[in-house]
Formats: sequence, structure tokens, C-alpha cells
Amino acid sequence: MDKKTIVAPNEILFDFSRIGDIKLDPLGDEIRLVRERLESGDVDENDCLGWLKLPKPSIQFIEKVEEAAQNIRESDALVVIGIGGSYRGSKAVIESLSPAFGSGFPIYFAGHHLDSDYHKRLLNHLKDKRYSVVINSKSGTTTEPEIAFRLFWRDLQERFSKDDLKRLVYITTDKARGPLRKLADVEELTSFTIPDDVGGRFSVLTPVGLLAIASAGLNIRELLAGARDMMDFVREPTNNNLENNPALSYAAFRNASYRGGKKIEAFGSYTPSLGSFVEWWKQLFGESEGKDNKGILPTALNLTVDLHTLGQWLQDGERTVFETIIDVVHNAKLIVPSRETYSDEHDFLSDIDMHDVNRIVVEAALTAHFQGGVPCLRIQVPELNERIIGSLLFFFEYACAISAYVLGVNPFDQPGVEAYKKNMHSLLRNR
Amino acid sequence: MDKKTIVAPNEILFDFSRIGDIKLDPLGDEIRLVRERLESGDVDENDCLGWLKLPKPSIQFIEKVEEAAQNIRESDALVVIGIGGSYRGSKAVIESLSPAFGSGFPIYFAGHHLDSDYHKRLLNHLKDKRYSVVINSKSGTTTEPEIAFRLFWRDLQERFSKDDLKRLVYITTDKARGPLRKLADVEELTSFTIPDDVGGRFSVLTPVGLLAIASAGLNIRELLAGARDMMDFVREPTNNNLENNPALSYAAFRNASYRGGKKIEAFGSYTPSLGSFVEWWKQLFGESEGKDNKGILPTALNLTVDLHTLGQWLQDGERTVFETIIDVVHNAKLIVPSRETYSDEHDFLSDIDMHDVNRIVVEAALTAHFQGGVPCLRIQVPELNERIIGSLLFFFEYACAISAYVLGVNPFDQPGVEAYKKNMHSLLRNR
Repeated sequence: MDKKTIVAPNEILFDFSRIGDIKLDPLGDEIRLVRERLESGDVDENDCLGWLKLPKPSIQFIEKVEEAAQNIRESDALVVIGIGGSYRGSKAVIESLSPAFGSGFPIYFAGHHLDSDYHKRLLNHLKDKRYSVVINSKSGTTTEPEIAFRLFWRDLQERFSKDDLKRLVYITTDKARGPLRKLADVEELTSFTIPDDVGGRFSVLTPVGLLAIASAGLNIRELLAGARDMMDFVREPTNNNLENNPALSYAAFRNASYRGGKKIEAFGSYTPSLGSFVEWWKQLFGESEGKDNKGILPTALNLTVDLHTLGQWLQDGERTVFETIIDVVHNAKLIVPSRETYSDEHDFLSDIDMHDVNRIVVEAALTAHFQGGVPCLRIQVPELNERIIGSLLFFFEYACAISAYVLGVNPFDQPGVEAYKKNMHSLLRNR
Repeated sequence: MDKKTIVAPNEILFDFSRIGDIKLDPLGDEIRLVRERLESGDVDENDCLGWLKLPKPSIQFIEKVEEAAQNIRESDALVVIGIGGSYRGSKAVIESLSPAFGSGFPIYFAGHHLDSDYHKRLLNHLKDKRYSVVINSKSGTTTEPEIAFRLFWRDLQERFSKDDLKRLVYITTDKARGPLRKLADVEELTSFTIPDDVGGRFSVLTPVGLLAIASAGLNIRELLAGARDMMDFVREPTNNNLENNPALSYAAFRNASYRGGKKIEAFGSYTPSLGSFVEWWKQLFGESEGKDNKGILPTALNLTVDLHTLGQWLQDGERTVFETIIDVVHNAKLIVPSRETYSDEHDFLSDIDMHDVNRIVVEAALTAHFQGGVPCLRIQVPELNERIIGSLLFFFEYACAISAYVLGVNPFDQPGVEAYKKNMHSLLRNR
């Protein structure tokens, strides 16, 4: 690959100039083949490819989501119940685009763990509030969200009329089966369907993600447009060279690194609001690839903090890691004041924009890590908005499917997640 | 090691029953030797061992911290400025012991990254508040905290009198050098000293951690007593067998795993309030051990969420990982309501305490991971309180020093952290 940078829609730039000896070209044929099979549905898992067309929903669907979100925003707050892929996507988008210390519509997550103290205090916190609930669970019987839903449903039932509940509770589940579908029917609640052909970690652009995102006041049409921009670009049939298709080169970068013994991907950004986006990415890749005793370990970098924590290991520890950074070009302007009188030590920070310092650190750290033996990919985005986040979501999903197939695993199952569940059910039954 | 469990002070139990083929005994002599050298100061880094005596400060020192905290609590809020070891310890303790949705004294962290939007919004959020600032920086010139301090100092200076500033601003820095020491002298601010013989990641029991912790309303005497309980136990000269000293067996577990090709430690808990404690642990071990192209990669588990995200990789991915879990016995009681009429599917969750379900999942997941080839250590604590957190802090510090020496690295330096700083300074100077 002679070209070191690729520009994708919405000015998203992929900078491969610091990958050193990691050779992408040898994987070209393999990757094109995988892509052809994926695009033609010639894979065993062709009943799991629904996410490929999610960026183009019907206008009726969008309007239904927006209307539900509008109703939700007329209540005092929203509790989003779901675990894993059933909340990570919405949390990623909402937090990426919600400024710190903002006073937006209050959204709380629940049923994403089993901490009784957290749930008890959240119930108490909401006890005088007219709040809404969105529950995302395909089976309706995943332990954590099921328990949380029972708690909040009971609370609302005790305080509100059946008619009120119809405006407060929203169910996203299987189209026909499970206790939540039954509840939606019996209580005439607004419900949405999780498509059969979309797995949890690929579900952010289904109602699982979109309803909570719209309830946060974000523009889901722009989010979908951004995903569509990227979809049209990376799925364009003739765009099948690593040099021009960043999803293919990212998949190549990951697999070439892995084959070269770099088995950990440190992924993150210098913008803390992307922290939950990084967690979404971790699940997407970790759960898609970590199987058959294979798979890159995805690990998060929250920078610059982690330069002062994991930075040491990254720079000098085992040489088994590569790095991917999302670098945001524009941010709020904030000029660093001078120290005034209290010191004459080196003062090269005065009157600089803080964000310029941040971007200098991005450069400095990528160069240092690269020189320390860590291949680094920089993904530069002009700013954070719905359109760009939508583009990134689709980018990573598409790259992930390709990457997992090149690794030789099924990107869409998660057989290992069942192991502890079996033990749990047996322990619960035999209490 | 025949014994599978070790009970430490404050009913902290170490359960080694699921470590499988990882043999600890062969490391016994090596570990005892390292411990002897550490205890007798016979190491090259004997000027870095101040943390060993931190649990026993003078009463004058405690009273000075408590008095400063009392003053801080009379203001509207506190901004704690510091990065890496200069804030992770206090954040870990405060969040472990502050209930979710609580209405405690507001504490904000700053200068732990370079996000201009975050800092601009925090300044704006506090613009009508009479807030305090604690700055932790030994050199006084670490970029992130230096920039943040300049911003908040300028803001306070513009709004308050010199006398007010004496009650609002607290400096923790080197005893004699640096711009912050000079500022403290010139402006007659209350200041604290970071001991020369304590590194950042071992500094939670110095004023770096204690002042913010006390300002949160937590009992630092109990925290120190807990650390002392553990110190007296793991440092007791005759307690030098793996079977009885959990710090030694944890160090053995880590090194035996590493030598056997398990080069990643997944560390976490099923109690989300320990999330920041896990981050403190990551820095402690990652920065102490990740050098000379060696070192275990520390990675965080936030459970049960991560059973639905990284769980797949953990169960079925590369067999290069071992796991350490903190399991909390007691938590709030919260009974799961029945589903009532809306489903007759399996319902074995009704009328159980949610926390009992959580602990069943701990058992189920540890067993599943162990059966999947992941050696697992369970650290059980009766509950979360100052005394127990203090014990855990000292436990991990002591185990970390031993573990790093057995690995053959200096636990107390961080040469790799300098690499990006050099690039950064050069880029800043040549702007």
C-alpha cells in the first residue's frame, strides 16, 4: 500500500503512516474474497446480515421512533434497560454527543449489571418522578434486564394508570415471542421489533439504539445519513482495494498485526466523551472475534490519562500490541492563561489553545509509541456530530465482519457467552 | 500450596481454588528472597520505599488533612486537579464508597486529560459557585494538571480576595521545588508535601489521596487503620509462606501465570462502584511491571456487563489470560418482583434478593471461565467500607512490589512515560 492516508465521507481520514513493518498488501486477495462472499450473501451466516441494510430504514419507521421519543421527552426522565449490545450502542452515541455538565434530558441506564444498591437507589431517586422506561431484550429473559424491568414496571404500575403506562413504557423485543411481547400485547404498549437477522452488538441502528438516542434529543436522521454515507462508500462494489477502502485496510491492519504476534489492540481517543464509544467498539470486536481460541484482545485507552497509567506498558512492555486512535480535529477554544508572577520556570504553555496542546500530544504519543515498536493507526474526524458518529458506527461494523472472516471465525455468534449462563440457571434452579 | 483459601484481616478472603495447573510453590523461595530484600531495604530502589510506612502517619498530619477537608466542605464544591497517580487513588476510594445517585459533597476531577470542552464547561458550571481547588503535582509542571490549575486559579483569583483564596486553594507538591511550591509560599496557601520516597501510583495514602478522600466526607482514620491492618499482616516477618500470606501468593499466581504464557490479567468486580478502583489497580500494576519488553497487560472487567461484551473472548478466545475478581458479600437487599400475569415462561427469579442473583453469577462465571482454561482468583470482601478499601490498597501495593521484583523489573520507575513527553515538549517549543 503506497498511499498512507485514505479520506472517507464526512472528511474522516485514515492515517496508516505509522504502521511500520505491518504489510497490508499480502492480505489483499484474501480480503477481497471475503468481501465478495459477504456482499453476495455467500456465507453460512447469511441470516445474520440484516445490519448491512439498517442505514436505510423506512420513513414510517423513523417517524414511529421519533414520535415515541417525543412522548418520552414529555416525561421527567428515561430509564433504558438492556445489557451488552442492548445498551452499549445507545450509550456510545448519547455520551459522544452530550457535552459534559450538560443539562439535557435525564437518561439512566439499568439492568446492565446486578448491583442491588445501584438499582435500589435509582428507584428511590425516581420515586417522585413521572419517568419512562425503554426495555431492549430480544428474548425478554436475559437475567439482568429482566430483573431491572420487573422492578421498574412494578414501580410504575403502582403509581400510574394503565393509560399512563401506555405513554411511559416502550418495549423492544422479538417480533412474536417471549414475555415482553406478551406484555406489550396485553397492556397495549408501544413496541418495536428487533430484527431476527441483526445480532445485539450490530443493533445500534435498530430501535434498540435509535429510540434511546432520539430520546436524548439527538438527530437520528443525521445519524442514519452518516451511516449511509459510509455504507455507500465501503460497500461500493468497485471500491475493493485496500488503498481506497479503509474498512478493508483496517481489517488487513488488524489481521496482519495479529499474524505478526501483535495480539492486543489498544483503542481509544483523547476526547473523554468517546469513552463509551470505545466500550461499544470493545464489545463489537471482542465478541465477534474472540472464539475458537483466537482473537485480538480489545483494550481501551482513555487519553491523555492512560499515557500516565497504561502508557508505560504500551511504550516499553511486551511488544504484542498495536494501537488505533480516534483524533478529533475541532473542539472548544480555551486559551491557557499565563502563570503570571509565581514562576519563571519554562512557560511554553501560555496563550495556547488547550485543544492545540491536546492534538500536539496525540502526535507526540503516536510517534513515541510507533518508535517504541507499536504500529499505530490514526482515524481523524473533523468534529463529533451525529453524521460522523453514524459513519464511524457503520465503518467499524463492516470492518469487523470482514476482519473476523479473515481471522476464520463466525463474526455473528457468541457461543462462549452461554457457558456461565448454564451454570447460573442450574445454581438458580437448585437454590 | 495445599490450602486453597487464605483469610486476611477484616475478613478478606483469598480463594485460590480455581487456579488449576498454575503452580505457586515453585516460586516460593524466589518470592521469600525478594520479600527479604524489600523488607531489609536491600534493593537499588531503596529510596522509593516510603509507601511501606504510609499507614502510620503522625496524628498532627491527620489533623491537618482533616482541618483542610473541613474548610473545603464549607465551600460549594471541590475541583481535584491531578493526573495518573495524582488522582486515581482518591477517585478509586471516593467512588467505591459513594453510593450511586447520592447527594454528597460535589467533587469534580480536572487536569486528568486535555479536553478543552470538558474544562470550559466545568468552569462555566462553577461560575457562580464558591468552590475549592486541590492540586496534586510533584513537579508542578506536568502539562495536564498545570493547564487545568492555571484555568481554575485564574478564575478564582478574578472572583475572590487573597484571603478567600487561602481558604479555597490547597497545594500538594514537592517540599521545596517547583512553581506550585513558590505559589504556596507567595500566596500563603495551605500546602502539603509529597514525600520524595513515594511514587505517584503508590501515593494514595499521602495527602495526594487523603485530602480529596477526607473532603468527600470519608473517614481517613479508618482507611489508614485498614491499610495498617493489612500492613501488619503481610509484612509480619514470620508470615513468609505462600499458604498464609496472600500478597505473596498473589505475586506467585501472577508470575506463574505469566511464565506459563498467560500474559493478560483481567481484573474486576460485579460491583460497579469499584470501577475506579479497578482503574487504580490497572495503573499500579501496568506502570510498575510494563517495562523491559515484559509485563502482564492489566485489563478491566466491569461485570456483569462485560460477561456480555468481553465474556466471549474470555471464555473462548486466546488462552493467554487469567482473572482476578473482587466479590462483595453484602449489599443492599432488593427483592425481585414476580412477573405476575404476563408470562408463564420459566420464572425462577421471583422473590430472590437481587444481590443473591449477582453472587450466583459470580460463582457461575468463575466456574465457566475456569473450565474454559482461565485460572481465576476470587478475593472476597464482606462489604465496602473505609477499613476494607484501606486494606485492599495496601495489599495490592505490597503484592505489586513483590510481583515486579520477581518479574525482574524495577517496580518504581516509569522510563517509558518520558518518551512522548520529549516529543511533546519539542513540538510545543517549535510551534
